[in-house]
Amino acid sequence: MDVVHQLDIEPGMSVNALVERMSHCGFGARRLAEATAIYEKMLSGDFTKFLALSGAMVPAGMRNVVSDLIRKGHVDVLVITGANLVHDIIESFGCHCLGTAESDDAALRAEGKSRIYDIFLRDEDFAAFEELMQRILPDREEILSGRELMSHLGSKINDERSILRSAYEMDVPVFCPALPDSMIGLQAWMYSQTKKLTVDAFADIKEIVDICYGCERSGIVIVGGGAPKNFALQSMLVTPNSFDLAIQLTTDTPENGGLSGATLSEAVSWGKISENAKFVTVYADATITLPLMVAATMERLKNSK
Amino acid sequence: MDVVHQLDIEPGMSVNALVERMSHCGFGARRLAEATAIYEKMLSGDFTKFLALSGAMVPAGMRNVVSDLIRKGHVDVLVITGANLVHDIIESFGCHCLGTAESDDAALRAEGKSRIYDIFLRDEDFAAFEELMQRILPDREEILSGRELMSHLGSKINDERSILRSAYEMDVPVFCPALPDSMIGLQAWMYSQTKKLTVDAFADIKEIVDICYGCERSGIVIVGGGAPKNFALQSMLVTPNSFDLAIQLTTDTPENGGLSGATLSEAVSWGKISENAKFVTVYADATITLPLMVAATMERLKNSK
Amino acid sequence: MDVVHQLDIEPGMSVNALVERMSHCGFGARRLAEATAIYEKMLSGDFTKFLALSGAMVPAGMRNVVSDLIRKGHVDVLVITGANLVHDIIESFGCHCLGTAESDDAALRAEGKSRIYDIFLRDEDFAAFEELMQRILPDREEILSGRELMSHLGSKINDERSILRSAYEMDVPVFCPALPDSMIGLQAWMYSQTKKLTVDAFADIKEIVDICYGCERSGIVIVGGGAPKNFALQSMLVTPNSFDLAIQLTTDTPENGGLSGATLSEAVSWGKISENAKFVTVYADATITLPLMVAATMERLKNSK
Amino acid sequence: MDVVHQLDIEPGMSVNALVERMSHCGFGARRLAEATAIYEKMLSGDFTKFLALSGAMVPAGMRNVVSDLIRKGHVDVLVITGANLVHDIIESFGCHCLGTAESDDAALRAEGKSRIYDIFLRDEDFAAFEELMQRILPDREEILSGRELMSHLGSKINDERSILRSAYEMDVPVFCPALPDSMIGLQAWMYSQTKKLTVDAFADIKEIVDICYGCERSGIVIVGGGAPKNFALQSMLVTPNSFDLAIQLTTDTPENGGLSGATLSEAVSWGKISENAKFVTVYADATITLPLMVAATMERLKNSK
Repeated sequence: MDVVHQLDIEPGMSVNALVERMSHCGFGARRLAEATAIYEKMLSGDFTKFLALSGAMVPAGMRNVVSDLIRKGHVDVLVITGANLVHDIIESFGCHCLGTAESDDAALRAEGKSRIYDIFLRDEDFAAFEELMQRILPDREEILSGRELMSHLGSKINDERSILRSAYEMDVPVFCPALPDSMIGLQAWMYSQTKKLTVDAFADIKEIVDICYGCERSGIVIVGGGAPKNFALQSMLVTPNSFDLAIQLTTDTPENGGLSGATLSEAVSWGKISENAKFVTVYADATITLPLMVAATMERLKNSK
Repeated sequence: MDVVHQLDIEPGMSVNALVERMSHCGFGARRLAEATAIYEKMLSGDFTKFLALSGAMVPAGMRNVVSDLIRKGHVDVLVITGANLVHDIIESFGCHCLGTAESDDAALRAEGKSRIYDIFLRDEDFAAFEELMQRILPDREEILSGRELMSHLGSKINDERSILRSAYEMDVPVFCPALPDSMIGLQAWMYSQTKKLTVDAFADIKEIVDICYGCERSGIVIVGGGAPKNFALQSMLVTPNSFDLAIQLTTDTPENGGLSGATLSEAVSWGKISENAKFVTVYADATITLPLMVAATMERLKNSK
Repeated sequence: MDVVHQLDIEPGMSVNALVERMSHCGFGARRLAEATAIYEKMLSGDFTKFLALSGAMVPAGMRNVVSDLIRKGHVDVLVITGANLVHDIIESFGCHCLGTAESDDAALRAEGKSRIYDIFLRDEDFAAFEELMQRILPDREEILSGRELMSHLGSKINDERSILRSAYEMDVPVFCPALPDSMIGLQAWMYSQTKKLTVDAFADIKEIVDICYGCERSGIVIVGGGAPKNFALQSMLVTPNSFDLAIQLTTDTPENGGLSGATLSEAVSWGKISENAKFVTVYADATITLPLMVAATMERLKNSK
Repeated sequence: MDVVHQLDIEPGMSVNALVERMSHCGFGARRLAEATAIYEKMLSGDFTKFLALSGAMVPAGMRNVVSDLIRKGHVDVLVITGANLVHDIIESFGCHCLGTAESDDAALRAEGKSRIYDIFLRDEDFAAFEELMQRILPDREEILSGRELMSHLGSKINDERSILRSAYEMDVPVFCPALPDSMIGLQAWMYSQTKKLTVDAFADIKEIVDICYGCERSGIVIVGGGAPKNFALQSMLVTPNSFDLAIQLTTDTPENGGLSGATLSEAVSWGKISENAKFVTVYADATITLPLMVAATMERLKNSK
């Protein structure tokens, strides 16, 4: 039986050096090391790579981590919340501010600031977002899929660090299963009052299910949970395939029965994840664990060249 | 300054008697009592009443609590996950089974059972669901809103305890902001391969925003978080109005920055909830707190007649 | 296989009526019903009954729940944090105030108030506590056990709702495994500068281990976790016996590896809890679940008479 | 107002390079960066440095992190759970094994293994621990403080990576406020049946309070919570001083009202932490955040030489 190696810290050690040593520890440290090992395998092998992203990751500073993964070819399918895309678009011309969670929220409203935990957004950035959306949304006769709308928007964002732009350039499909539940949805609806824009609520299903049918081997990284997690997993469910590798970075725990905190083992009972899959959940703040896992994996890929 | 009254328990006491005494306690007990006080105010006054429901509440046994609230006129707008509606439909002809969270998930798959924490679903019930859906989905030339599709489905469910049926009969609009992210979405897509069925992804936005515009005073009960929470709050955001009363029952906490755990105070900074609103979040399993709050409030309403 | 019975709420229903219906639900509701069934069994049968209490239960209003259980003979051994006893003593002459968690803590300090989440304590009550302790602590030549000191203090508290007083009158031993980590410890140390008072750090171990040796059948209710949980379980560990019934009410979850959130199943691997034991953990705020479980169980005991 | 800098990852980057970039992110990432900044300040300046450690940190592989901090002079006072010291002693001759949290706990018992989440301990290591303790515990006429007992044990452990040994050699006092609540306590009690060994439960209070009185400026790192957190904070409370710098690494959140999850701001209302203190809580698994914070800080200290 393998034993715990007490972790040694060396000043100046690389992120991967630290994560490697965590593989002989317990609790979250070991799970993080396992996640990194699975991610290295996913990125090194011939897997169709899904990334399901929820939680306010872009406001919290994770935009470049995601767009960089896309540009490096490490994402084949992106399933994401509308909110993250809204903030991705805002970052292309504006910014998010470092605030504090201990705020007088009524005073913030009076100042024209909206709070996301310890991040503030200024009304002027939202106004600019609305103005931009009304300018770049498509005027089309034919009914679009959500994926097509996302691709169109990506083509209009002039920022190479943008998630939407990167996905557009790399030909990565972007699925947003709760599209009406975002300011993109709100803006699209307003736009459609005067222009021609219709999105078929179900068209994305065909597109993602087709991808799932075509997967010989597949892996998924789930950040948070929510609709992106479920949409990716249920799409695989309706095919004869299932995920071979799966990583979940979340703070939700299983005990309340919700999908976001459900174990990946539970997904095995549904046939979403293969009985023989390698999978792990790291229960910790993804603004810490996602950069760690990505930095350690990138270092391994570089070293293995 | 009010003081803590140490809570006295009497054998046979009613749920409301217990909750009332919790109003002089601390922590979750007091928050539950505050939630009940706000809910009593919401149901007694002239408020437009929203219910935003996520988490596997129907599999966990909360279906009648919700449908009963609808039938009693305590819900004016329902925003809900597709999954809860899937399970609502399954309950109209089938069942959910009492399982255990400590399961061999591969063995469950072999037996044809899918697990939701400690609840099991049998493949035959899913098969019957699919067969039913293919029979009752509408064949329509015109493009529908999601709300219209939900209303149509409600008209076809022959079960008065059904949430969808109750909403249909009581004329309560049902919004499902992540409709593609559910087996209803999957079935609708399959159906549309051979029949005529198109849902406009954005049409619901107009309907719910119109309702929000029309609210003089409004209140919301949020169970869980996710897309239903955000969709209801953002719809109010684009109007000059805001919620006057708000209750959240959730296990998510604010520290990870996600929307599900975001405080209701944070929503004040956005203008979703009024600066002068009364609101409270009860941080505990909603399968415990929702029945408690509803039972205590129903008792108060009955007593006040 | 048993099926989920959708929960029906009736205005005016008793706490037990609600909890009984939860036994056919999922998630926390079912666990609460299981906890109640185990507690009914524990209180009805011939079990040595341990109560391990941590978390600020007395400031939050749970003092009478505990002292009432003691007076009714439902507690044979109490293991408790020093802080809960400090607040028990303060309640015998003073009070805790209903405050708010959203406080300016520097301003509170200036006002002479100490905060425990949403409960405030006034400096004058602490001062009175200190004065009382210096008056009632024992002046003894012989070295005492912690249990003896607790018994002495209980004899001096003139309040029949006091936990310490109730335990004294009912001859229930009170163990406080982290005695120095409390204001009782601080006061005892100050007192011992001028008077004769020595407590043997290890004497309690003999007393509780002797009780554990004598248990034919035993049950434990753990509120929170911490030192009381571990002290009770480790004392049983060193005997040939183990707990037959165990209930844990806590918000800690297992994933971080700490003892407070450790599953009761984990305790089976140590031999602290019997392989054949009935046990359940309810993951929710104990200020909600403890009163519910106790009220439902008391109703059952009354009905069964 | 400072803005979010989207985090860029570079393969091979050092831990500190990553943590520095987190200072312009949100949520847990920013808090981790703040904790590191505070820790750098604490270790660079003239602060009396407390470390309060709970949770199964030694079984999880954090022993060398702690003993290395002690040997480098970065810990002036250690407050720790007995369990961590038990496992520190076991590591001096034996080991902890890498297991899994999904275990058959009855089978583990049959195999002679005790589980701590995903770490296993073998009965033979516990047996060797007991044998060692009976050999090295002191036979003394005079009554000892817990700190003296810890110092004696440290002198007997022949392992320079041991926390107890390192503290002994570096003359760092070790306080264990729940000493009876550990296998050291159990062994000490057994030993005292035949030999002379008495520990005064309150003697440690004098020693730590004296240290607190002598602090001009002080800082504390709290891992987990529990008795070590409270004991350190309450000891400062009874002096005119208060902590100037404070870091908490924990998974407990404030909402349930327990001390472990209480905010450091709450400690300001008590006067335990200075109104002008710099403090931060990182809500995430400490087996991840502690090595990160320490590695980043060590790199900064090295670079600043």
